[in-house]
Amino acid sequence: MAFGSLDSLLAPKSVAVLGASQDPRRIGGRPIAYMLERDFPGPILPVNPNRETVQGLRAWPRLADVPGEVEAAIIAVPAEAAEQAVADCIAKGVKAAIMFTAGFAEVDEAGAERQARLAAAARAAGMRLLGPNTLGLFNARIGWFPIFSSSFENGWPRPGRIGIASQSGAYGTHLFALARDRGLGTPVLITTGNEADVTLGEAIGWLAEDEGTDVIVAYAEGVRDAPSFLAALETARQRRKPVAIIKVGRSALGARAAASHTASLAGDDSVTEAVLRDAGAVRVRNTEELLDIAEVATRRIYPCPNTLGVVTISGGAGVLIADAADAAGLAMPPMPEEAQARLKSLVPFCNPANPVDCTAQAFNDLSVIGAFAESMLADGGYASAIAFFTQVGASRSIAPSLREQLDRVVSRFPDRLFILSVTGPAETLAAWREAGYLVFEDPTRAVAAVAAMGRFGEAFARPPAARPEPLAAPLPTTRPDEVEAKRLLEAIGIRVPEERLCTSAEEAADVAAALGVPVVLKLVSPDIVHKSDIGGVRLGLAGPQAVRSAYDEIIAAAQRHAPHARLRGVLVTPMLSGGVECLIGVTRDRVFGPVAMVALGGVFVEVLRDTALRLCPFGEADAMEMIRSLRGFPLLDGARGRPKADVAALAAALSRLSRFAAGAGPRLVGVEVNPILVLPEGRGAVALDAVVTLEESHAA
Amino acid sequence: MAFGSLDSLLAPKSVAVLGASQDPRRIGGRPIAYMLERDFPGPILPVNPNRETVQGLRAWPRLADVPGEVEAAIIAVPAEAAEQAVADCIAKGVKAAIMFTAGFAEVDEAGAERQARLAAAARAAGMRLLGPNTLGLFNARIGWFPIFSSSFENGWPRPGRIGIASQSGAYGTHLFALARDRGLGTPVLITTGNEADVTLGEAIGWLAEDEGTDVIVAYAEGVRDAPSFLAALETARQRRKPVAIIKVGRSALGARAAASHTASLAGDDSVTEAVLRDAGAVRVRNTEELLDIAEVATRRIYPCPNTLGVVTISGGAGVLIADAADAAGLAMPPMPEEAQARLKSLVPFCNPANPVDCTAQAFNDLSVIGAFAESMLADGGYASAIAFFTQVGASRSIAPSLREQLDRVVSRFPDRLFILSVTGPAETLAAWREAGYLVFEDPTRAVAAVAAMGRFGEAFARPPAARPEPLAAPLPTTRPDEVEAKRLLEAIGIRVPEERLCTSAEEAADVAAALGVPVVLKLVSPDIVHKSDIGGVRLGLAGPQAVRSAYDEIIAAAQRHAPHARLRGVLVTPMLSGGVECLIGVTRDRVFGPVAMVALGGVFVEVLRDTALRLCPFGEADAMEMIRSLRGFPLLDGARGRPKADVAALAAALSRLSRFAAGAGPRLVGVEVNPILVLPEGRGAVALDAVVTLEESHAA
Repeated sequence: MAFGSLDSLLAPKSVAVLGASQDPRRIGGRPIAYMLERDFPGPILPVNPNRETVQGLRAWPRLADVPGEVEAAIIAVPAEAAEQAVADCIAKGVKAAIMFTAGFAEVDEAGAERQARLAAAARAAGMRLLGPNTLGLFNARIGWFPIFSSSFENGWPRPGRIGIASQSGAYGTHLFALARDRGLGTPVLITTGNEADVTLGEAIGWLAEDEGTDVIVAYAEGVRDAPSFLAALETARQRRKPVAIIKVGRSALGARAAASHTASLAGDDSVTEAVLRDAGAVRVRNTEELLDIAEVATRRIYPCPNTLGVVTISGGAGVLIADAADAAGLAMPPMPEEAQARLKSLVPFCNPANPVDCTAQAFNDLSVIGAFAESMLADGGYASAIAFFTQVGASRSIAPSLREQLDRVVSRFPDRLFILSVTGPAETLAAWREAGYLVFEDPTRAVAAVAAMGRFGEAFARPPAARPEPLAAPLPTTRPDEVEAKRLLEAIGIRVPEERLCTSAEEAADVAAALGVPVVLKLVSPDIVHKSDIGGVRLGLAGPQAVRSAYDEIIAAAQRHAPHARLRGVLVTPMLSGGVECLIGVTRDRVFGPVAMVALGGVFVEVLRDTALRLCPFGEADAMEMIRSLRGFPLLDGARGRPKADVAALAAALSRLSRFAAGAGPRLVGVEVNPILVLPEGRGAVALDAVVTLEESHAA
Repeated sequence: MAFGSLDSLLAPKSVAVLGASQDPRRIGGRPIAYMLERDFPGPILPVNPNRETVQGLRAWPRLADVPGEVEAAIIAVPAEAAEQAVADCIAKGVKAAIMFTAGFAEVDEAGAERQARLAAAARAAGMRLLGPNTLGLFNARIGWFPIFSSSFENGWPRPGRIGIASQSGAYGTHLFALARDRGLGTPVLITTGNEADVTLGEAIGWLAEDEGTDVIVAYAEGVRDAPSFLAALETARQRRKPVAIIKVGRSALGARAAASHTASLAGDDSVTEAVLRDAGAVRVRNTEELLDIAEVATRRIYPCPNTLGVVTISGGAGVLIADAADAAGLAMPPMPEEAQARLKSLVPFCNPANPVDCTAQAFNDLSVIGAFAESMLADGGYASAIAFFTQVGASRSIAPSLREQLDRVVSRFPDRLFILSVTGPAETLAAWREAGYLVFEDPTRAVAAVAAMGRFGEAFARPPAARPEPLAAPLPTTRPDEVEAKRLLEAIGIRVPEERLCTSAEEAADVAAALGVPVVLKLVSPDIVHKSDIGGVRLGLAGPQAVRSAYDEIIAAAQRHAPHARLRGVLVTPMLSGGVECLIGVTRDRVFGPVAMVALGGVFVEVLRDTALRLCPFGEADAMEMIRSLRGFPLLDGARGRPKADVAALAAALSRLSRFAAGAGPRLVGVEVNPILVLPEGRGAVALDAVVTLEESHAA
């Protein structure tokens, strides 16, 4: 198993506790008390130089004194003793250490250095290290509680198949406590703290491989290790295990706060957003939605395609649900005509389209509800259904008969997601849940959860992402000018104009004449970046005289503005028009490496920041999906009588650029092709300008 | 009181029940049973031709037989007896009738006609009519329960100061039941059903004037009567009573479903959205948020300006809250430097900026939490605060001391909104609530509610909306052509180009020469709408020859394409450039009357539908606010080195157009000024083209 190296961390056979405390409420005491109470089967070996016994267990003065093998260790010592404790663990052959001790990278630079030393030592010795600055973890299935949270005062984890991975300890246990109080089973929680070694990605990966886990919920402040994170999400996807994740730091303030919390550098949130989406994880905005999704996901019904049918006794709720479904992108096709006619014959004033409103008539004859719900699933064939009965579902006089009606319907369609929206006293809701129903008081929360199941379904149905071969092209040795940058684009199959670098006015005029169309002249100099600003670009030149004068004026302007700049010449290029100006580019994300971007030009990118991102490399189908996701896409797609643009050619160029970036190595800082003119359908896309930035490109 | 005519509906001294039933579970029996149990003080007078008594009360064969005055009547008879029942009520001098009977406008056209007859009869007699097709209402303060809902099985309404107004009966009682189960007091519920007479607006208005109501929650499918709705919202605003509203029908499917529910025509959702925002109501998307806001609003703290301080023992939660605040537009300024330094001296590893993270250190010394919370309110001066303690707040060992710390702080700052985010067993949360704390398990829900309080605060602080005088300008008698439309704009003070309608090529050339700049020629014909499509527009003409030829070509093109069209001539107008093309317009909303719109031209309006709306008339400040709300506003505001556009001139034109539309009467269908060229600052805005549409404009 790819993430099997965490087995000693999650399910060890023995544990030593460094800094063991007699007081079961102290940090070094809580784990011992918890494991004693929850019957951890392996030996618990307290290490404490001052005591013979700790909480009734035989204690040892030093770890070295403990006889036999020790698989895991809890490090609950003060910061100044932490390095020695890690060294002791390594010397003892410990396989995994959980380090509560704080005061490392989350504090200052010196702390970060101490942390790096610890991690290096552990890694060299093959010992996995959770933390430092971690609250710990639990695996309740074996009574394994190396954690100092106080959250068990109100109850132990329930059995179940939801796993929690969290960078934040307090938030991870907050999630656990909320899940427990809802009746959800979360037997495994891993909080990763500063992630000197074990990362959130690995925690998710272990859960993805764990036979006992079906559903993974995660809390992230920033991703540290892209390969393990991506591998974990792909493992989960292939095993049809949904990953629902809160990734904080969307806002500038949030990102700053995250940096000073678990020493995480949040990275570019828009890149993380793209990564999560493409990996099939569902990103949510709050804990409530996270747990709603986890609860519904335990049914393991991930419809693809997803459709929603709604049966309701309140027309108003039906409308509200329809609005919410629309906002969530969840389709609510109408019932078949024949079925509608049949329902109309049962309840003349009903509205049988979808939402199927059986009206208050259902009060008088509950068999109506059974008939409507059954028709919805049988005739409507919806993959998911929400049944809204509000407090009627909690009415003592009505609930039992309602239950009979629904039991019959639901048992006939075990493959459908069926959610009940009723409200009432806690015990009534609990009774419905015990009978096996998913219950949401607020139907719009049910809609959000149902929509998420469809997104998981789509992700699970996808084949593994195509990662086409990188495209090799030699990088120039020094910062490329426009001519060299375009040569690079040509080498990777991106079309550039038929143009020539000229070094005299006469040559420029000849080239223009050979092109036979109006031309553009552009200064080429490695030392002048903003050539337009100094009069280095001239548009729409027709006739040899205009070209010759423009050449001379450009050279003169360059010499006037930058007397020492190296002038390579003037590029003569046909003046193209009639297309849509877009831009494509790649940048190197600190965490995830090369990321490609596409946008429409002008206000779309400048004012609206309407861009689409994806990790490199990817194929043309993925490129097409990026382009279609742009808000401005209608402009490429023939909106308002415009000609359709050659989107396929744009997608091909974008994919090629991504493949080049994937193979170019870390010297490539970025490429920006701006604009790339996307001509009408069938006529291609042409890179009109390009800037390639290299690591060492310190201009002379 | 403006809405006092509902007093007999909401608080009558006597009630007759037409269709009274002995069975307390039938529609005609429930209200009697409820009022008996809840001690309605006035006489309850059952009308039933077949019984001497009903539920122990003396019954009367016909309403006419009831002795003395009857203030209110419940009509619970079958559809075929409904018209007679209304006539009987009128004959008896009943002041208000609640009509449960269904089968009217929500069913078909014939039903709509029957309903209109009922309404007309009631209105003529001065009797207010709730329904038909209403579930009814309650005013629990006086035991008044003319309602056939089953929702009281699980408990009666609690005392409190939240009023509910809902078009949907089932959804209104769903709201009530959820509120009750949360412990919220909603003594008054009004469900308006088909609204033949009494509308949702009036229900809101009555609650706004009601001494016992502080907070109003509403559910709307469509607004029927704009004046009462707007007056109700303004009454609420002036009395500092927040109105939180769910208005369904955002989506096309939702709007269709609403139409077939309470026979409501949803109207243009974007207009309703603008109306609610400008009236100071807060529109929410789901019931949970509605009740969250209602609960927090009962504190009657509506900060303006609103700022949020966060104290947390989980850095992760702090980040999540910061993200949520950012998304909600809620400011989280940092703590003062000195205060941060002092907190750092208390807890070295804390992060005191805001969110103020006191870290797990708070476990060891709870006085830290008191000190941090106090410093946040005293030094930070935040109007609102969220304190996140997760399950620690429910810990038996910690909660009592935590409570002591917080009691001390909160009592010092009674004017601040203070919300606790803790989780744990229901009884622990209940204990915090009983102690007077607002408690949210999910802190992001607290953020949404806090943000809403700030929006109420802003609305309450605003003076009543300026409604400037209408601008009078005579409407043409027949459909105006471009020249006449522009004359109209000039008459209301909107600038148009210096241009002239010419009827010969020579005249056109002379006019162009007099203008002294390149010109545009445009065909003017009342019979040709799309003049560009037939070659009726020519741009950038310089010199007399070019103008003469263009004139002749335009006339020839018009004669070729539309031989019978009346040609008024050709407009010669200077070719303006260098500004930003926008469009302004007015349309007549079916419900709210004239509505003005502003947008940037091109892709912003065509592809992105980036528009701002407002009811007419309004002043320049409001117009400016509309313009600033456009996503494309940066383009007018000098984005990326563009010159700043003369936004003040655009606002002036927009306001003038709104004042004209407000005074023009129903003959004016719409005006579209497209484009209006907004020149650089100080140079004005010029209407380059205009179309005015009139009611009777049936072109020849």
